[in-house]
Amino acid sequence: MNGLMMSGKLLISSLIVHADRHHGDTEIVSRRVEGDMHRYTYRDCHRRTRQLANVLTGLGVKGSDRVATLAWNGYRHMELYYAISGMGAIIHTVNPRLHPEQVTYIANHAEDQYLFFDLTFLPMVKLIAARCPTVKAFVAMTDRAHMPQDAGIANLLCYEDLMEAASDDYVWPTFDEDTASTLCYTSGTTGNPKGVLYSHRSTLLHTYAAALPDALNCSARDVILPVVPMFHVNAWGLPYIACMVGAKLVFPGAGMDGRSLYELLETEHVTMAAGVPTIWQGLLSYVETNDVNFSTVTRTVIGGAACPPAMLRKFQDDFGVQVLHAWGMTELSPLGTVCALKSRQLKASPEERYAVQAKQGRAVFGIDMKIVSEDGHALPWDGKTAGELLVRGPWVANSYFRNEGDAGLQMDTNGNGWFPTGDIANIDADGYLQITDRNKDVIKSGGEWIGSIDLENIAMGHPAVFMAACIAVKHPKWDERPLLVVVRKPGIALDRDALLAFYEGKIAKWWTPNDVVFVDALPMGATGKVLKNKLREQFIDYAFPTG
Amino acid sequence: MNGLMMSGKLLISSLIVHADRHHGDTEIVSRRVEGDMHRYTYRDCHRRTRQLANVLTGLGVKGSDRVATLAWNGYRHMELYYAISGMGAIIHTVNPRLHPEQVTYIANHAEDQYLFFDLTFLPMVKLIAARCPTVKAFVAMTDRAHMPQDAGIANLLCYEDLMEAASDDYVWPTFDEDTASTLCYTSGTTGNPKGVLYSHRSTLLHTYAAALPDALNCSARDVILPVVPMFHVNAWGLPYIACMVGAKLVFPGAGMDGRSLYELLETEHVTMAAGVPTIWQGLLSYVETNDVNFSTVTRTVIGGAACPPAMLRKFQDDFGVQVLHAWGMTELSPLGTVCALKSRQLKASPEERYAVQAKQGRAVFGIDMKIVSEDGHALPWDGKTAGELLVRGPWVANSYFRNEGDAGLQMDTNGNGWFPTGDIANIDADGYLQITDRNKDVIKSGGEWIGSIDLENIAMGHPAVFMAACIAVKHPKWDERPLLVVVRKPGIALDRDALLAFYEGKIAKWWTPNDVVFVDALPMGATGKVLKNKLREQFIDYAFPTG
Repeated sequence: MNGLMMSGKLLISSLIVHADRHHGDTEIVSRRVEGDMHRYTYRDCHRRTRQLANVLTGLGVKGSDRVATLAWNGYRHMELYYAISGMGAIIHTVNPRLHPEQVTYIANHAEDQYLFFDLTFLPMVKLIAARCPTVKAFVAMTDRAHMPQDAGIANLLCYEDLMEAASDDYVWPTFDEDTASTLCYTSGTTGNPKGVLYSHRSTLLHTYAAALPDALNCSARDVILPVVPMFHVNAWGLPYIACMVGAKLVFPGAGMDGRSLYELLETEHVTMAAGVPTIWQGLLSYVETNDVNFSTVTRTVIGGAACPPAMLRKFQDDFGVQVLHAWGMTELSPLGTVCALKSRQLKASPEERYAVQAKQGRAVFGIDMKIVSEDGHALPWDGKTAGELLVRGPWVANSYFRNEGDAGLQMDTNGNGWFPTGDIANIDADGYLQITDRNKDVIKSGGEWIGSIDLENIAMGHPAVFMAACIAVKHPKWDERPLLVVVRKPGIALDRDALLAFYEGKIAKWWTPNDVVFVDALPMGATGKVLKNKLREQFIDYAFPTG
Repeated sequence: MNGLMMSGKLLISSLIVHADRHHGDTEIVSRRVEGDMHRYTYRDCHRRTRQLANVLTGLGVKGSDRVATLAWNGYRHMELYYAISGMGAIIHTVNPRLHPEQVTYIANHAEDQYLFFDLTFLPMVKLIAARCPTVKAFVAMTDRAHMPQDAGIANLLCYEDLMEAASDDYVWPTFDEDTASTLCYTSGTTGNPKGVLYSHRSTLLHTYAAALPDALNCSARDVILPVVPMFHVNAWGLPYIACMVGAKLVFPGAGMDGRSLYELLETEHVTMAAGVPTIWQGLLSYVETNDVNFSTVTRTVIGGAACPPAMLRKFQDDFGVQVLHAWGMTELSPLGTVCALKSRQLKASPEERYAVQAKQGRAVFGIDMKIVSEDGHALPWDGKTAGELLVRGPWVANSYFRNEGDAGLQMDTNGNGWFPTGDIANIDADGYLQITDRNKDVIKSGGEWIGSIDLENIAMGHPAVFMAACIAVKHPKWDERPLLVVVRKPGIALDRDALLAFYEGKIAKWWTPNDVVFVDALPMGATGKVLKNKLREQFIDYAFPTG
């Protein structure tokens, strides 16, 4: 027997409708690639989103068509998020930091019908335009005055010209909530990128869960700055969360350096910012160098890679900004866990609290997780035993887009499929997850595992270290041993022995890296993570000092 | 094209599983009808819930069977919530404050298979047992030592005896999320009570929405005391919310007086309590009389009836307890709106803030609302124009249980059905709802409407008034005029003229009640609301003083 409740489908269009009706005069502020700041309200945004839906209809876009974007975080990107998904088509956010070959591969694999781009990415569009036969037109996200001249792109359209000609009279259609809404390819450090295809249902459920007090804790009193890009995993869902709760949104555009971010945080009274550790490293450098403070930011969400404990302490102790450590993946929409404390921990000593906060946190409701041994058996939640992390839930990928097969799900005895994350982790009795490594990054020394993240976190705690990565290098006796690759802060002296001595007492002695190499920069991937496979290639012939 | 995400069904069993895994040692504390306090953890609760599922299976309960409860808020009731719904059957929570005739009607209408009851309600069970032919057994929610002797009930079972014999080895089944989970009858002040049948899906979506920061804002750091009964609209969803977020739960059992509640709030370090205004009136009286304070409570959720502004100020100004004014209905699972402030209002003057907080608040995401004129046209959101409130959303009733027809839905031009709430309300430009009256309680004076809630709120602001209700009484010239019925506080003098003079300057002069009648008590309904239809009957022959 079914319940007797309204069907009430979970559709993305309902988010922008809600924001308009309940938060019509709340602002969306964007730093534009044209150079200036743009301000408007949710009411304006919804009106223009309806206009854009008419534009897309006029261009012949229909259900299930993929419409691609190559764009920064900004209001026009927001309009595309809601117009494309809202009308029943699929927004395909392309990561502009990928190699042009990969972008071409992705656009063709997705069979994108249109591609909208910020002017920054005109060079990329010029490179790929002739090689993307399914794309009917490339739309520059700007007005007539800023349109590029003689771009040499066969079918180039102007966003604001199209908008000007369109009516704002549009009623959002109703359809099945399992309908695909959004396509995002994994960064694909090995092999071709694979497409994760989100649905309206998965997006709405993720939005509810991610906004909860013990997740990102978002309300109408927040001013949210998503530093995490809208071109990758929906900026962690923040463009959806902001509409659900009516938070003011501040979009940084292309200004991702410490100074630009700091100015935006201050002038727009931002309360919460979200990004990867490398971005925060730049921001903290700026703030410390210029001896300034945060006056409105109360919390930062840090994910995408493990947050070094030193960064955690700096934010909290030096600047009074609470850190919410989080973990997610493209295949998880992306949110899996957030490190919100329990009451007991609030009463604990600062050291105990920091030990918990260094973990990636508890599963948000909707995500089930477990760690398993190499033969697939569930391991205990004791905070020590490490195994591969498996997850399941209504916003976890089941398979990849078009002929890429399933997502390698592992079935349990109840017939439930679990997604193998490729992360090695432990989980404590309170349900706090700690990622100790990527499966492929773990260092296998004499039959035991050494977690590279632990070693990196310690190095990052040294005042002279700007960035550090730890990789496995072949060793004649131990099979593999850790090599630490370090970027020093400018103007501070640090040598190998001093850094290795810094490990003493912080970790089992046999975990200590065998050597340190200083470099000018680490190779970074398209989503702001260190590319350890590149590092391993670079140091493939490295030989540890003997003795 | 569908998204490629896991199906991840929304099932109630996942809540208790999550609470066990992530908050296994968090407590559930209950004041028992046996007289003592009971404490256990979510892990214990889940274990016993699995045992109970085996008990029910052993009793022959299967999918869609209704299993009734007549019980206070307590841990055994919690076990029944999760065991019955979790196994795919339907928990039917019966309001023990209803007349035995109504309880009999409801049990027969629902075709309940079993009825679980707290010992308090043994007299009720004795009255109805022989007249409920579908009920195979009545289960006393107690242990062998407390079982009633010679109760004269043909098939009487003991809860703890059944539990003792049952294994805790039980795997929660998976089924369609639209499956019915819970049945709750409206209080039915006119006509027979009507059954609202919730589903797993509606319950889970309601739980997500109700826990959001701008709704009830619940986290693992909360200690929640639901004064609102589990026998009516699921204690506003708190037994589900607590599991989702891992909050400690404190159940008051039968101790609903000011002193019992106050002691529980203090000894269990409660952070949030939820109830109707009449309950808070008793608590505040106790606290003021005894000159004590709240040491851990940070907020109260007040709903079920409009919160008088005087109570709002007392909680906030005198005791530093934030009031969350909310509105809901049985047909809404129950949450519709919560009055969380926006940033702009936080900066406003206290008077402006109180004016907003006196409203019932903004729609939680998932609920659409509108106000319509008598001919069904949507009215503007200007904070003044009043009309009937219509709502829709995935946790709003579509129709009533068994042959009661639909819920009188009104269709809009897009083919969406809206539930008519029977409430008269205005909505302001920020989306804040204010209920001005029940449709049937509004006073029609000379062709204009007078809102009875406004008149009651003013009276409740007088220091000598304990409770007040305002009803329409026939008037020879104006058709209807307001009559104020008042319960005075003990030991404080107050007469008619002084109270009427208190209205001066607070309201349009022609709204002032024509007369005041002092009574010893107001007739209260089964859900803690004043029964205005009883009052109107009582004063049907009343004649206003002439002149």
